[in-house]
Amino acid sequence: MNDIAAKVLEGDPRSIARLITHAENTSPLAASQMKKIHPYTGKAYVIGITGVMGSGKSTLIYEMTKEYRRQGLKVGIIAIDPTSPFSGGALLGDRIRMTELATDNGVFIRSMGTRGMLGGLASAVYDVVEILDASGKDIVLVETVGVGQAEVDVIKIADTTLVVLVPGLGDSIQTIKAGIMEIADIYVVNKADRSGVEQAVAELESLIDIACNDKDRKTPVLTTIAKQKKGILELVKEIENHKNYLKKTNRFQAKRRKRYEAELVEIIRKRLMNFIFDESTFKGKVESLIDQISKKEVDPYSAADEILGKILK
Amino acid sequence: MNDIAAKVLEGDPRSIARLITHAENTSPLAASQMKKIHPYTGKAYVIGITGVMGSGKSTLIYEMTKEYRRQGLKVGIIAIDPTSPFSGGALLGDRIRMTELATDNGVFIRSMGTRGMLGGLASAVYDVVEILDASGKDIVLVETVGVGQAEVDVIKIADTTLVVLVPGLGDSIQTIKAGIMEIADIYVVNKADRSGVEQAVAELESLIDIACNDKDRKTPVLTTIAKQKKGILELVKEIENHKNYLKKTNRFQAKRRKRYEAELVEIIRKRLMNFIFDESTFKGKVESLIDQISKKEVDPYSAADEILGKILK
Repeated sequence: MNDIAAKVLEGDPRSIARLITHAENTSPLAASQMKKIHPYTGKAYVIGITGVMGSGKSTLIYEMTKEYRRQGLKVGIIAIDPTSPFSGGALLGDRIRMTELATDNGVFIRSMGTRGMLGGLASAVYDVVEILDASGKDIVLVETVGVGQAEVDVIKIADTTLVVLVPGLGDSIQTIKAGIMEIADIYVVNKADRSGVEQAVAELESLIDIACNDKDRKTPVLTTIAKQKKGILELVKEIENHKNYLKKTNRFQAKRRKRYEAELVEIIRKRLMNFIFDESTFKGKVESLIDQISKKEVDPYSAADEILGKILK
Repeated sequence: MNDIAAKVLEGDPRSIARLITHAENTSPLAASQMKKIHPYTGKAYVIGITGVMGSGKSTLIYEMTKEYRRQGLKVGIIAIDPTSPFSGGALLGDRIRMTELATDNGVFIRSMGTRGMLGGLASAVYDVVEILDASGKDIVLVETVGVGQAEVDVIKIADTTLVVLVPGLGDSIQTIKAGIMEIADIYVVNKADRSGVEQAVAELESLIDIACNDKDRKTPVLTTIAKQKKGILELVKEIENHKNYLKKTNRFQAKRRKRYEAELVEIIRKRLMNFIFDESTFKGKVESLIDQISKKEVDPYSAADEILGKILK
């Protein structure tokens, strides 16, 4: 086995970081190494944390990580929110606190940009989850902002998804109504020392009563004050409850299967797109077709037919 | 020419709506009709409007539309923000005001979900822009929330992109720092009757001084109070200035070429994905590979190799 995959399996942080970078750049090395680590994956429990800016997601993740570490578990953190302190996007004080975790060998933090990635956001995140999993992390926390199609697609790979809200922010409820509801396994009303917390919980409960699809389980609503470490233990316990529920009802395997399906789709998409738009054999043809579209000599759908005719059996 | 394409060219609202639905569902009819309308496109000027929730984008769009109508121009509105009043996601009062526009025959409003779309968000939006363009709209306004990869991809098809902020909302500036900056052609500080407007403008100006890539043109910062119709005329004029600048410097054709390139990429992606994941010939093979991945009998990269080997020449 090549050095880098072997070292990832040993949990070596530098090798983990290197392989992630290769995966993000869809380098040829990435595929061969990803193939090697796959048999050692599937052990990590993946928790998605989503919510609008200012809902305190990062502080929550910080405190959850500290709790998991107390339990002796190893934690990987993937921050996709560009304004997350983990990504260096927030206030300096927060940022320093988050990077404190980075000095702990049982924690690996990676922030990911949402733009300019050759293979698309989702495919890179799937790879990072596999890499952290293979490296021996027991828990992988994925942080995203709860708006945007790509972000929601990403969070769908989680075993348990937390949707984080704050009291008195009408926007939060709006976001939920607009479609986040379907992905929430647990609601967290953070900053519960603010006024309006009872109202926020009540609004959520009534939304859940209307929208809840799963007859066997009502989506729980928890309150936390992450900055004061309040409600963290209860939250970690509720995640464990959800995990047990998934396993008991065979939903766990179904979720994992969906993740692998999404991963396969992404790899194929990435390969095909690179093949068509980056391979020198096609580049000239594609460029000339785009020129023809601009001049109205051909339409985009017919141009697509022509390219597909050249590559498909 | 088939009825539906011909009627779209005549501007018939029901036919426009029907063709959009076909395009969203990637129905077989869509491609044939899209081919027919392409020669009649390219006339509409596309304006992207992006910004966080609560920045008043919809009110701005409402007032801009009324101004364009006064100038005798026809307007298409595509609302991608799920919390937009155009999408029915906001307060009732706003919603009623927006739908008032729908009774004007020179205005066509379409709201689009960001999830569950077979072909992906971007490809559907490109089609809708082409349809509205072919239907004789002079201006097409595309509203998105400024967070999320898919949303930013969508806004890149605009000729002029407005980034809307509000004073005193630190989050706005954070968002911009995080990557929106590159796509802004004009900044709009809306709700300029709030305190902190001078500070917001000053912060923006200094960010622009640091980050502005285009040496020929400094990104302008405008202030508006959309609810009081203040600054709308100036904004419409500034958009016209940007249009003239694009045309004078040959950037207009380059932008349009990029839009067609993005459109072609999306159509090809959509076709290939449907071919692999929806065609009955492959479905069984794909399903069995996903099972094998779940059981660690094969890894996702090798599975992708196998499928691609079957379809590529």
